[in-house]
Amino acid sequence: MSNKRIVSGMRPTGKLHLGHFHGVLANWRELQEEYECFFFAADWHSLTTEYDNTGAILENIREMVLDWLAFGVDPAKSVIFRQSLVPQHAELNLILSMITPVSWLERNPTFKEMQDNLDAKDLSTFGFLGYPVLMAADIILYRAAKVPVGHDQLPHLEITREIARRFNYLYREVFPEPAALLTETPKVLGLDGRKMSKSYGNSIYLSETAEETSKKIMSMVTDTQRVRRSDPGEPDRCVAFNLHRLYVPDDERAEIVESCRGATIGCVDCKKILARHLVETLAPFRAKRVELAARPELVDEILAEGSDRAAREATVTMTDVRDAIRL
Amino acid sequence: MSNKRIVSGMRPTGKLHLGHFHGVLANWRELQEEYECFFFAADWHSLTTEYDNTGAILENIREMVLDWLAFGVDPAKSVIFRQSLVPQHAELNLILSMITPVSWLERNPTFKEMQDNLDAKDLSTFGFLGYPVLMAADIILYRAAKVPVGHDQLPHLEITREIARRFNYLYREVFPEPAALLTETPKVLGLDGRKMSKSYGNSIYLSETAEETSKKIMSMVTDTQRVRRSDPGEPDRCVAFNLHRLYVPDDERAEIVESCRGATIGCVDCKKILARHLVETLAPFRAKRVELAARPELVDEILAEGSDRAAREATVTMTDVRDAIRL
Repeated sequence: MSNKRIVSGMRPTGKLHLGHFHGVLANWRELQEEYECFFFAADWHSLTTEYDNTGAILENIREMVLDWLAFGVDPAKSVIFRQSLVPQHAELNLILSMITPVSWLERNPTFKEMQDNLDAKDLSTFGFLGYPVLMAADIILYRAAKVPVGHDQLPHLEITREIARRFNYLYREVFPEPAALLTETPKVLGLDGRKMSKSYGNSIYLSETAEETSKKIMSMVTDTQRVRRSDPGEPDRCVAFNLHRLYVPDDERAEIVESCRGATIGCVDCKKILARHLVETLAPFRAKRVELAARPELVDEILAEGSDRAAREATVTMTDVRDAIRL
Repeated sequence: MSNKRIVSGMRPTGKLHLGHFHGVLANWRELQEEYECFFFAADWHSLTTEYDNTGAILENIREMVLDWLAFGVDPAKSVIFRQSLVPQHAELNLILSMITPVSWLERNPTFKEMQDNLDAKDLSTFGFLGYPVLMAADIILYRAAKVPVGHDQLPHLEITREIARRFNYLYREVFPEPAALLTETPKVLGLDGRKMSKSYGNSIYLSETAEETSKKIMSMVTDTQRVRRSDPGEPDRCVAFNLHRLYVPDDERAEIVESCRGATIGCVDCKKILARHLVETLAPFRAKRVELAARPELVDEILAEGSDRAAREATVTMTDVRDAIRL
């Protein structure tokens, strides 16, 4: 059993944006240098909220995985797979459901929250209530030692750990309790100053063109209290400056702060600087994405091969699981 | 798609008794002459209530299937398989869970009832709440046209039909709604006059010896109001007479009724007559069971082959399911 194994998945919601890059992909890219990584497209999880709107899932998987590959997730280093191509996830989910008290799921803090947030949808399904069980199956199926999570996902991981512990207690020690690999990621604001999110329509996509990105940057909100060009501005109040912090080199950024506060640079010029750096930084990844997207079979091939590798690992675990349960 | 297909399963609780024979097996034996039957050992269902006591499941499957085979369920006519060897049950269960409202499960009348009956056990698990979803998957995975049920199981079948309907409505017509094949079966009383049930310790097992059966019959309660041999008895109050109705030929039974009411036959002699007929009727089946049990690999082979056949059917359905969901 490897103690350097990591599992992490993403729901296929389509093309990824800068928020995904800084929140997840940049981290995955580093992790794969040090860990044995299993990264998966969580298509069954999509059904928990999108069961009545499944038409785009396959295309969403393709676009998402193209972003993964273009931005540095490497099939030579990591196992990249699709959840629903590894039916052992469903089998382990079923078995874990038998030992998981409903109360553990009802007290899941994101359960009520998501039901409230998405109250136009009917999320009172059995599958939605049980998604932490499926998540537990996803992770412990590979006996992952660690799971990269943000603070908001700690309650989920705690349920996973409790389920693993309960299995080990009822049958025998089969699963390590996966530990949180807490990752500090920068908060990426969207064009309107809210968190960057597809549903807010405020995103800069990894796959868009340089022109699209530049145009979006130029439309970004800056310091709303700086009414005239001659007013001094405050970068800490500027939405665009959130991206300067990520893309403009330190020395140039220090100058900008001074010029903004001294009203010697206008917002238009300032955003042009940002746009240039952002577009330059993304250019090689985007070029690679165009190249990869021109090979129509590529994503399917990578997912098929990765899913085979994942299934081999899953088979080993499930043999052990059935033996432990004596089934 | 066949419209002559039937699916029916049994939880592996071990050796079967006369209640199982008259309630299920006798019916299965007839159905397989007319229908394409899928009969399965529902070992995953065992986990809904026995997740903390799984040590005996494999042996229970073996004993149960030996009873099936000895008493006329024929692998040349029917597909005899083990649920957990066909992982598509788990996959379809997961998918159906996404479209099943929790409220449908909470209003399941046997849910609260079983929780109350088994209140020494903790049955507040997610898997126990969801067993009607797994049951729906078991049935519609084979696109069964009919399901043999008693009146008490109609609510379960109704949930299955609702889930099939909802799937067809959300995606496209994939599943026929299975109809109830209502079966009138005789109520079989145990030695103590309660319903014959393993947990009451009042059962006559299909696999026991003639001597054991005779001894049990002789210990049976008769008409408790007939205190002395010279008192007239009443067959309608006699527990043993419940079995006379099933095993003693009509003319001989008519004589017995007269003799009992006229106090010209004692209970001991009367039960000897029953024991003789019962033992004679069961003898050829029991002999066959001894023969089958002497071939240690037989049950595993039959289940492996049947599970392969079932999995082939299941694969066809799941291809259609994934296509309908566009997953």
